[in-house]
Amino acid sequence: MGDRRENAVAYAREHVEEVISRLSEFIAIPSVSTDPEHQPDIETCAQWLVNELGALGIAEAKVIPTAGKPVVWGDSGPVGAGAAEEAPTLLVYGHYDVQPADPFELWTSDPFTPEIRGDSLYGRGASDMKGQVIAVLSALHALRETGELPVRVKFLIEGEEEVGSPNLLSFVTANSKRLAADLCLNPDTGMLSRDDPTITYGLRGLVYQEVRLIGPAHDLHSGIFGGAVHNPAQVLAELIAGLHDQKGRVTLPGFYDNVRTLSAEERESLARLPMSDEFYLKQSGAPALFGESGFTAEERVGARPTLEVNGILSGFTGEGAKTVLPSRAMAKISMRLVPNQDPQAVRESLRRYVTEHLPPTVTCEIVDIAASPPLLSPVESAGNQALADAIKRVWGKKPLFKLEGGSVPVSTYLQDAMDMPSVLTGFGLPDDNLHAPNEKLDLPAWKNGIQALIHFMLNLGER
Amino acid sequence: MGDRRENAVAYAREHVEEVISRLSEFIAIPSVSTDPEHQPDIETCAQWLVNELGALGIAEAKVIPTAGKPVVWGDSGPVGAGAAEEAPTLLVYGHYDVQPADPFELWTSDPFTPEIRGDSLYGRGASDMKGQVIAVLSALHALRETGELPVRVKFLIEGEEEVGSPNLLSFVTANSKRLAADLCLNPDTGMLSRDDPTITYGLRGLVYQEVRLIGPAHDLHSGIFGGAVHNPAQVLAELIAGLHDQKGRVTLPGFYDNVRTLSAEERESLARLPMSDEFYLKQSGAPALFGESGFTAEERVGARPTLEVNGILSGFTGEGAKTVLPSRAMAKISMRLVPNQDPQAVRESLRRYVTEHLPPTVTCEIVDIAASPPLLSPVESAGNQALADAIKRVWGKKPLFKLEGGSVPVSTYLQDAMDMPSVLTGFGLPDDNLHAPNEKLDLPAWKNGIQALIHFMLNLGER
Repeated sequence: MGDRRENAVAYAREHVEEVISRLSEFIAIPSVSTDPEHQPDIETCAQWLVNELGALGIAEAKVIPTAGKPVVWGDSGPVGAGAAEEAPTLLVYGHYDVQPADPFELWTSDPFTPEIRGDSLYGRGASDMKGQVIAVLSALHALRETGELPVRVKFLIEGEEEVGSPNLLSFVTANSKRLAADLCLNPDTGMLSRDDPTITYGLRGLVYQEVRLIGPAHDLHSGIFGGAVHNPAQVLAELIAGLHDQKGRVTLPGFYDNVRTLSAEERESLARLPMSDEFYLKQSGAPALFGESGFTAEERVGARPTLEVNGILSGFTGEGAKTVLPSRAMAKISMRLVPNQDPQAVRESLRRYVTEHLPPTVTCEIVDIAASPPLLSPVESAGNQALADAIKRVWGKKPLFKLEGGSVPVSTYLQDAMDMPSVLTGFGLPDDNLHAPNEKLDLPAWKNGIQALIHFMLNLGER
Repeated sequence: MGDRRENAVAYAREHVEEVISRLSEFIAIPSVSTDPEHQPDIETCAQWLVNELGALGIAEAKVIPTAGKPVVWGDSGPVGAGAAEEAPTLLVYGHYDVQPADPFELWTSDPFTPEIRGDSLYGRGASDMKGQVIAVLSALHALRETGELPVRVKFLIEGEEEVGSPNLLSFVTANSKRLAADLCLNPDTGMLSRDDPTITYGLRGLVYQEVRLIGPAHDLHSGIFGGAVHNPAQVLAELIAGLHDQKGRVTLPGFYDNVRTLSAEERESLARLPMSDEFYLKQSGAPALFGESGFTAEERVGARPTLEVNGILSGFTGEGAKTVLPSRAMAKISMRLVPNQDPQAVRESLRRYVTEHLPPTVTCEIVDIAASPPLLSPVESAGNQALADAIKRVWGKKPLFKLEGGSVPVSTYLQDAMDMPSVLTGFGLPDDNLHAPNEKLDLPAWKNGIQALIHFMLNLGER
């Protein structure tokens, strides 16, 4: 087995220039999902990826249409068939679409003509996440060229991640057999620095609602009616103000009831992450930080639920003075959830809060826009431990385990509905300029990542 | 003197058809001030009015340019010169511009082709306020044709009332000598019904400000930063919520200190107005009324100060879900003031409230947009009593005295800075469809109004 690992790693090392050249070809296809003008590039890109999977010897690979951009699906076929125990199946989630590249003038080199400068490969999608997809393919290729695949690998590579994956959940539901696997690798979450390989062990869930208040039947003159009629913008402000207490806690009844408590060990571990309050202050550019008292910023973002006003609108918002008493007021309100909060219960509690606190002077409509549960992928899970060991073999140190404040509904769905534990990682860095000009991929971290993925798959095969 | 009155009234009666024909010509000029395409019509209309004043024998009449639409100015010249006491001077304020007429398809007859149906003359501006201006001219004409004018009359007829009179105050300041008078008649406030001639004895003042809060340096991802950074939309909601107490009173320190108390008599008199709470409920279409406890809706609108959110905006307000933690939040906040509140003091108190309650997590900018003081034109003033007597002679009953919640900065300015008491009245009705399709002028009320204006000017001349 020692040879097996060494051979595969050596193969990957020797052929890395070819892999970079394949990655550059991938980046050169401007698969921008936000812009309908790039629809042909989306299709070209999906087909390119299918061809690439085929060239790597993946038995089945195809472009599958959805109501939106197509999904690239692949399956290496069973491994170790006939043996006492079949090798496990790993589903690799990824996306082949990229963010728009504008403003073009801020790029040092053309975003779709990849260029290496120093340790970095520059180009739109280099880090997010074409480089990550190619890292997996390179690891697989090295394993194949030096023996049998240690695991069966399936692919679910979507083309709509940058527009919010509107068709992904229905695709997954409709193709659950085709996607069935023992665990899912999502290499889209990144690492904290070149020397800090990272595994994300939790994502927050999301409940997103729109609250609309209707007061008078039409906009009124604030002089002629001000004093006689309740202003729905004022009512909305009062409702929003009541949603947090003096300590920055959300006041919805039962909001914290099922929230997982952080153990002392976990808090110590989170405190070691290079994401101090100072980090959040600098990244946000806010005059001062804020949040639930008794927790660090990192804990509040990763392990505590929050409620945000994402938008609010009422009345006249142009230049100058218009003396309107508005008929309507609207707020977009979302909550980030942590284990073990239930999105349906949280959704209902906001609905109840609004209706119970609504004065008789206005009526309301509450629109449910999105809901997805939180995800916890325990540090000690088989998948995370297989990856942690792999990382240690390459970097010579244990990975950092972090919690992320954002939401990845597909990972949650795969874990909850399809019983497929998530392994969340990636080899992009915080300063890769994701979604910004001069996106880059850090090649040393990425090359280590390919080796770690080789060990990860070998570890999984040894189960 | 009996003959004098009778003769003038009889003259007006006999020539009313000619006056309606002059009014129709006036209405036919589409002097819409909101639309630059109508600029030539504005100029035509101003010139038409100057010609009309000249035809009535007004000694001086001319179009005077401003930075915006021109003002029509006129002066009948001194009356009773050489007598022991010169007759008083009356300044007539009005506007010759009109609201846009769209949606055209909702008009029964063309808005700029006046048409009489039943008791009404239909056309844009018929009631607001070309009809009112022509009523004054008709009264003057009848007085002139039957004797000497009892008062010197000056005219200040602007072309920007429907766009907020942006250049009027500076015009008045720059032309104070030319406009000097003993009192000012503004016939733009209307009556409560055909049988309820009305004098408005108070207008509210206005302070209008924009509060802008800035939190993080740019919009943030609500998953990645939610919990670490204070949301400026939430801060703004909390600030707004703090501006009213449980009883619907404004919490700004000292806000009510100088508010004029209503006497028992005045409250009784206001209670007799046909503007019950039911009226406000129906007019507004709100599910229920609201306001400072202890006062009727009419008192709250006319005699009590209020604070309104005229507009509020932050973050994402489009369709669907965007998980943004906004960098900025803005609210337009205005206060209606009553005697004897000081606009500067009120403006400063909102500024102080915001800065004193601002958490260290956001910064703020407060923009002063408008400020004008309230106006009180006492019921017992000479002008109001001269008009009340005139109305009684025509309608056979005393006028109603009402307070209006809106603001007319020019009247306030003329009264405060130029020592010119206001007489606020008009012969338009609440159902004249002002600013709406099928605007009309009630001819019976208007004809009575012409007679009342004849008596009013004669009464002033008898002082």
